[in-house]
Amino acid sequence: MIHALLIVDHGSRIDAANDLLVDLIEALRIKKPELIIEMAHMELAEPSIEQGFQACVDLGATHVIVHPYMLAPGRHATQDIPRLTSDAAKQHPHVTHTVTAPLGLHDGIFQAIFDRAGLS
Amino acid sequence: MIHALLIVDHGSRIDAANDLLVDLIEALRIKKPELIIEMAHMELAEPSIEQGFQACVDLGATHVIVHPYMLAPGRHATQDIPRLTSDAAKQHPHVTHTVTAPLGLHDGIFQAIFDRAGLS
Repeated sequence: MIHALLIVDHGSRIDAANDLLVDLIEALRIKKPELIIEMAHMELAEPSIEQGFQACVDLGATHVIVHPYMLAPGRHATQDIPRLTSDAAKQHPHVTHTVTAPLGLHDGIFQAIFDRAGLS
Repeated sequence: MIHALLIVDHGSRIDAANDLLVDLIEALRIKKPELIIEMAHMELAEPSIEQGFQACVDLGATHVIVHPYMLAPGRHATQDIPRLTSDAAKQHPHVTHTVTAPLGLHDGIFQAIFDRAGLS
């Protein structure tokens, strides 16, 4: 099974807001160069989830792990992104997928907060 | 100088969404029990930034570090929260403050993503 990680943010009409996801993907690829890592916006901008899922498959993925890149387990993370992913996956019946929890509470987030505050 | 950390999220009309911040604050306090750590919502719910700032001062803080608990350096993190903080601080001329960068790109976030994806 060849895994891919598809990072999905909300998406914005503002290019600068969408650019953060590009930078994130680049950083993640440096961390795990052996892993297929692609990006998608839930709405308002491309690549869409459908396009991001397709990109993973085009690169050889047989299992796509979709991560809602959001702090809270709100409607987008728990309903909209799973639904859009399920729709995208229908075009690739040989490819399995999972949708992960959003970032939520995690020690890495606590570290980031203390770092930003200069309190590490 | 007695520091306080004031964590500010967007705020929501939905109680469950606001509850995440309560859980975050509790986790941060466990990490740094010696530090004054309070919470505020930028809008839509209480405590407001004004109320959160006041709570820090009431606990003895002479310097309040305000952290926009957001992924991206958008308008809320870079303009709205600094402005509301500045307004709140006017009532406490003996107390200094800083507003930090939002979470942004940070190794802790990368770790959180890989953990959620089961790829750590």
